Amino acid sequence: MPPSESHDLRVAPHQHGRPAVPSRSRWRPLGLDEVTLTGGFWGDLQDLNASTMIAHVEGWLERLGWNGNFDAAVEGRLPLDRQGREFSDSETYKLLEAMAWEVGRTGDADLDRRLRALTARVAAAQEPDGYLSTMFGRPGQRPRWSDLEWGHELYCIGHLVQAGVARARTHGDDELVQVAVRAADLVCREFGADGPQQGVCGHPEIEVALVELYRVTGEQRYLDQARLFVERRGHGLLGEIDFGPQYFQDDLPVRDAHVLDGHAVRALYLASGAADLAVEDGDDELLAAVTAQVLTTLARRTYLTGGMGAHHEGESFGADFELPPDRSYSETCAGIASVMVNQRLLLQTGDARHADAVERTLYNVVAASPSQDGRAFYYTNTLHQRVPGREVAPDELSPRAASSLRAPFFAVSCCPTNVTRTVASLAAYVATVDDHGLQLHQYAPATIRAELADGRAVELEVTTSYPDDGRVVVRTVRGPEDGWTLTLRVPAWAEDARVTRADGTTAQAAPGYVEVAGPAQGEQLVLDLPVRARWTWADPRVDAVRGQVAVERGPLVLALESTDLGDDVASAVVSTAQAPVERDGRVLVPVASRELPDGPWPFRGAPAGAPDPAREVPLVPYHAWANRGPSTMRVWLPVE
Amino acid sequence: MPPSESHDLRVAPHQHGRPAVPSRSRWRPLGLDEVTLTGGFWGDLQDLNASTMIAHVEGWLERLGWNGNFDAAVEGRLPLDRQGREFSDSETYKLLEAMAWEVGRTGDADLDRRLRALTARVAAAQEPDGYLSTMFGRPGQRPRWSDLEWGHELYCIGHLVQAGVARARTHGDDELVQVAVRAADLVCREFGADGPQQGVCGHPEIEVALVELYRVTGEQRYLDQARLFVERRGHGLLGEIDFGPQYFQDDLPVRDAHVLDGHAVRALYLASGAADLAVEDGDDELLAAVTAQVLTTLARRTYLTGGMGAHHEGESFGADFELPPDRSYSETCAGIASVMVNQRLLLQTGDARHADAVERTLYNVVAASPSQDGRAFYYTNTLHQRVPGREVAPDELSPRAASSLRAPFFAVSCCPTNVTRTVASLAAYVATVDDHGLQLHQYAPATIRAELADGRAVELEVTTSYPDDGRVVVRTVRGPEDGWTLTLRVPAWAEDARVTRADGTTAQAAPGYVEVAGPAQGEQLVLDLPVRARWTWADPRVDAVRGQVAVERGPLVLALESTDLGDDVASAVVSTAQAPVERDGRVLVPVASRELPDGPWPFRGAPAGAPDPAREVPLVPYHAWANRGPSTMRVWLPVE
Repeated sequence: MPPSESHDLRVAPHQHGRPAVPSRSRWRPLGLDEVTLTGGFWGDLQDLNASTMIAHVEGWLERLGWNGNFDAAVEGRLPLDRQGREFSDSETYKLLEAMAWEVGRTGDADLDRRLRALTARVAAAQEPDGYLSTMFGRPGQRPRWSDLEWGHELYCIGHLVQAGVARARTHGDDELVQVAVRAADLVCREFGADGPQQGVCGHPEIEVALVELYRVTGEQRYLDQARLFVERRGHGLLGEIDFGPQYFQDDLPVRDAHVLDGHAVRALYLASGAADLAVEDGDDELLAAVTAQVLTTLARRTYLTGGMGAHHEGESFGADFELPPDRSYSETCAGIASVMVNQRLLLQTGDARHADAVERTLYNVVAASPSQDGRAFYYTNTLHQRVPGREVAPDELSPRAASSLRAPFFAVSCCPTNVTRTVASLAAYVATVDDHGLQLHQYAPATIRAELADGRAVELEVTTSYPDDGRVVVRTVRGPEDGWTLTLRVPAWAEDARVTRADGTTAQAAPGYVEVAGPAQGEQLVLDLPVRARWTWADPRVDAVRGQVAVERGPLVLALESTDLGDDVASAVVSTAQAPVERDGRVLVPVASRELPDGPWPFRGAPAGAPDPAREVPLVPYHAWANRGPSTMRVWLPVE
Repeated sequence: MPPSESHDLRVAPHQHGRPAVPSRSRWRPLGLDEVTLTGGFWGDLQDLNASTMIAHVEGWLERLGWNGNFDAAVEGRLPLDRQGREFSDSETYKLLEAMAWEVGRTGDADLDRRLRALTARVAAAQEPDGYLSTMFGRPGQRPRWSDLEWGHELYCIGHLVQAGVARARTHGDDELVQVAVRAADLVCREFGADGPQQGVCGHPEIEVALVELYRVTGEQRYLDQARLFVERRGHGLLGEIDFGPQYFQDDLPVRDAHVLDGHAVRALYLASGAADLAVEDGDDELLAAVTAQVLTTLARRTYLTGGMGAHHEGESFGADFELPPDRSYSETCAGIASVMVNQRLLLQTGDARHADAVERTLYNVVAASPSQDGRAFYYTNTLHQRVPGREVAPDELSPRAASSLRAPFFAVSCCPTNVTRTVASLAAYVATVDDHGLQLHQYAPATIRAELADGRAVELEVTTSYPDDGRVVVRTVRGPEDGWTLTLRVPAWAEDARVTRADGTTAQAAPGYVEVAGPAQGEQLVLDLPVRARWTWADPRVDAVRGQVAVERGPLVLALESTDLGDDVASAVVSTAQAPVERDGRVLVPVASRELPDGPWPFRGAPAGAPDPAREVPLVPYHAWANRGPSTMRVWLPVE
């Protein structure tokens, strides 16, 4: 095994600023260097991330001593002074990844200084052979790799590697990159085909990280190691646990599964890693298996919001169509992981369903997590809140599953750091290129300066107030003379979208992708998406929302809050006789509040009657619920 | 503190054969000495318990070494050879309790021999000071009382005391009784007002046991200790756990709560103990609080089956009206605990709602647990099975929450032993007496030979094929000349019940209790309950079953199985235009199987259509589902 300094860490330009860069794909990703969000919904959230969320998370990690665990390791104070759960190192690494993307995006010198300082503390705790964990291996701690089921050692190193990859692709080689490389090299020595360890980690994450490190470094051993981890899975190498082997995807080999199952975040991270591996290996069977699993999961195991994982117990997927809004778990991290795997499959397949899933999940899960002020987060994202939550104090650490009000931080706090790294790298989801043109997947005010895969330059300016409004203006600031194509995604809900060229010609655009032949330099092209409030019904197998209807507007799922109803949302009955009304920028639906008399037994010999819906009540975007304080809330509204 | 031999263990006759004997009550319980089930639904289940279930449970406890833990303790092989979870001792004690009731009921000499032999093994493991646990206190084990949150030491001793109480009331003083008394005395010394321990047990059970031991022995210290445990609760004496303090009812003092919350079995055992304490103390405030909690729980947090506890996570109650049939937890033990607390409140209040709850829960939760052959059990009792279960091998130990097919035994196996002790003591739920007469609460073929509270003798013979049929014949074999009253429960669903006297006069009987003035000796009186299939709808706040209907027949909840539908029950649509049909002893409903085409996304812009229900499909009693092999099943049927 060559020493780590043998790595060639001059990162190829086509990898710059991109979280995932497959060696082959139908569409090639663009990154933070090419795409700049210039305001709007996502630009504002990036600003909030820059101004508040990253520092908020950093402050909590310092205050709780989770960053301090690395100092304690250096100073010989472990295990006595160790703080947090066994996976707390990963929060530090996800913060470092967020910082790396953010420095890459803005060049923020102060943030770069903080990143370097935190990296130095982490690096100091790394052992000479590359091992890095504040939880295992010291006197008084359990031995290395002694608890692969629950210890999260490889999971943590996976996040370290992802942070290193982000730094390499936004800055180049430095201490963070080298720390990640040394840890990855240790993993390859320990867990390689001839290594002393032949297991897998209870929480997938190392797989997706190792493939990306292979892509950055070109070192085959990282890809080989990722393959070993993916292929070992599903053969019972992990010990028995109460939740059963499907909890950590050890019940079936990855390529034999038909749908994602078990712990949702684990399943989705594993699927992301398996998809990456399949691409690099040219393993079409594996790629087809993962694609089918994800498509079946979208068709049968995904909430209207894009949320995944129905069960609190085991944080897991439920059975097909088992999607009760009550206490829907829908973990923020599972939303992020779904965005990761769907974006990967989009690059490979060009199937708009994956881009639709990315959009739906970003708006209704990822964006729902942070509060308006960026200082509190949802871990779970319920679709039905029956009891108003209580205000969480700014200094209060919450149990993870509280789904009433957003909390400043959690005892298990994977989600806030995950949100920060995702928001900082959002530009990567906007556009792709191929030999012939550029594809726009997500609509936000942005400037895009890219080279097509054949080297020709394109510069676009996107102007829109989407998703408030469905008008997207794309100006070709610079483009090839001819022979190029601008491809625009039309979401599945947009049934009468139109594209209008500079010459005034208008064409209908069906859901999927519409190709526009080479706009001329300076041409302004308009995509009109029918963003208006609409009723949405569920497949009858989603029994828990039978007789109920949701309201969506563009990519946004809307919700009814007691704050607007002036009554518990349990009393609401809506009429769907007309379309929802839009007035003064708000969506209103006709609602009655029914009387809900108390009885001795909630079951009776006749169905309950319902009054005629009488008044118009405004809805809010789901992502904004509870921003005005404790409320009861429901996405699915009873129809009588 | 006096030594244990000071107990006067000549058990008063009015306590014989009764699991719960309040010192004061509106109605006084009758027991196994007075009430004999003579066949029918419950008599047959008692026979199955006698012939199979008790021996099945006993065999598993031997095979798994949970009974053997006591031998290992004596032989100094602990902790090395210890088997099972920290609460496994309680299974041995519940088996002993079941044996005690069964020996009391039938005088089975072989079973009595087995009870004595098992008792001797337990007794041998008791330490000189009365402490008894195979899990704590030895070298290599954690110290006594060092884990009150999860250790279950007092919980186990509570079950030991209940076994001792059962033995005392069916046999009289013996080794089992003395083992229980010694352990209880230790608890009083350790946890008394001046004792070194001032905590409570994470799992309530000791409270209800100590009050009953007080009732058997007359020793005040047991009642005082129960009071200390009840009053200490809700003051944060237990440490923090992930589930939060409501999990083990440590968030609120018992008398301050408005509804049962947290882990359902814990909440219901605690409520039973608190009710018993309140009765003995004359603490009307506490009794009113528990009564209100239970009534609110029945009105808002109870499944149609009587099942309690909606969440798998924490095995806990959900919010009000949060009763999704999907994976309804509805633990068998919670059903048993609900029967315990409702019977206690019935004795105090004479409120028929409690007897209705006992009946509903016995038929649809307790009776649902054992398989037809008595060799497998449900731990959880879902109301909707989406995926056919797999056959469980006769020698297979299951995780507790498998809700697909009944399993022979569980790694956490509280339910099978709980079923055996409950079925063996079922006669205690049938009838009560007061000064003026006798009350019949549950209808089963039975002979009842009782004294009214004023000493007058009554002998009744009940003949019925209830719940198959609603005709209940009560013959007064022997009764006072005059001035006595026979009181009959009319279930809440029986809206046109009738009582017909020997002289042919018939009177309508409204739901609740109907009083019949002193039937003459030899008189045959007929209660006609309208047992016919009926549609049942849920309160609109039970959102998960909106647009769905259940079918009940008498006290039985019915279910649709794929076995009868010939298709996945997901496809079923029923019409409620007419009442369900009864033919050849079966209930049939008009059902269509709708096509369920796969789509890419389960949400759409229009509601799904439904075909007209076309064929009649039979339903099965819920308690009998999956007896014919793996199936999909639903209690709540979609109506379109």
